[in-house]
Amino acid sequence: MEKWKLLDKKLLIDTPMFDMYRYHLLHSEKKTEHNFFIIETFDWVNVIPITPEGNIVLIKQYRAGSDSITLEIPGGVMDKDEDPIMTARRELEEETGYINGEYQLLGTAYPNPAFLKNKIHFVLARNVVPQGKINFDPSEYIETEVVPLSNIPSLIAGGQIRHALAITAFVYLEINGCCGFSMH
Amino acid sequence: MEKWKLLDKKLLIDTPMFDMYRYHLLHSEKKTEHNFFIIETFDWVNVIPITPEGNIVLIKQYRAGSDSITLEIPGGVMDKDEDPIMTARRELEEETGYINGEYQLLGTAYPNPAFLKNKIHFVLARNVVPQGKINFDPSEYIETEVVPLSNIPSLIAGGQIRHALAITAFVYLEINGCCGFSMH
Repeated sequence: MEKWKLLDKKLLIDTPMFDMYRYHLLHSEKKTEHNFFIIETFDWVNVIPITPEGNIVLIKQYRAGSDSITLEIPGGVMDKDEDPIMTARRELEEETGYINGEYQLLGTAYPNPAFLKNKIHFVLARNVVPQGKINFDPSEYIETEVVPLSNIPSLIAGGQIRHALAITAFVYLEINGCCGFSMH
Repeated sequence: MEKWKLLDKKLLIDTPMFDMYRYHLLHSEKKTEHNFFIIETFDWVNVIPITPEGNIVLIKQYRAGSDSITLEIPGGVMDKDEDPIMTARRELEEETGYINGEYQLLGTAYPNPAFLKNKIHFVLARNVVPQGKINFDPSEYIETEVVPLSNIPSLIAGGQIRHALAITAFVYLEINGCCGFSMH
């Protein structure tokens, strides 16, 4: 089934966040050619931070895509030479000030394999405490919201959490049998 | 907290799949200005198709972003003047040939509110049967895979299903208490 061959790849635009390419592909069996518009960027990491009391550290921030304040979990883009755990530690401290704890990679998915080349890694951070130093990116203004982990299903059902990638993170938490978490 | 004002919006590139803009935003409290790179497209719809036997109709297709064959659920982009149920019916038949059944909107999320303006709607289709007419888009070559719904958690845990939006769909299935589905 994997019959597509890349004939040509052209950079259409590069931004500080990602680069957009036109891939020109040939289906070697059907002999048809198609253009696909693909965004390339570094992998992303999302963190599920759990306190010693069993609460989860959520963040609220303005998102320019949805033009709304979203409730989600901390995370960001992997720097060069980082592994997912390093990114998780760094982003968690920068965005919330939470540090220490034990880290575990729960799983890796594609945020959107149709047009995004990058992957997203989901990391569990247990027993984190607010003793670090917040350091926002220039365009970030983030508020922290600490809620019981068991509130997550109703926050999704009620529409307070609507970020698909944050929602996906909780699936990896559940299928790993972590922290007694269940969607119902 | 919602202090951002759009000062300027510039189309950088339009493709057949989506348009990319540079939004120039002012934070009215901090008096700082920032560029955000935002993709605009129509809303997306993902369908969870269940047969009368309680199986789920999955699809396999090549994805140019991940450069791999992905196992996911049917879906696509809403046409103008469609509602999510109409798109679900159309995409399900076009991609798999399954028709009829009862449709229900399970929920709506943002695929990525950081840089995607559009939403994604998750639709349950119960009691669908393979009596329709497959009609692929020019660049689509899709295979159908019918599996018991209860296999989904192990397909996610085993890495066979890695598309974050398909995974999100199953969360909406579970929090709606549909079809007895559970992640564990």
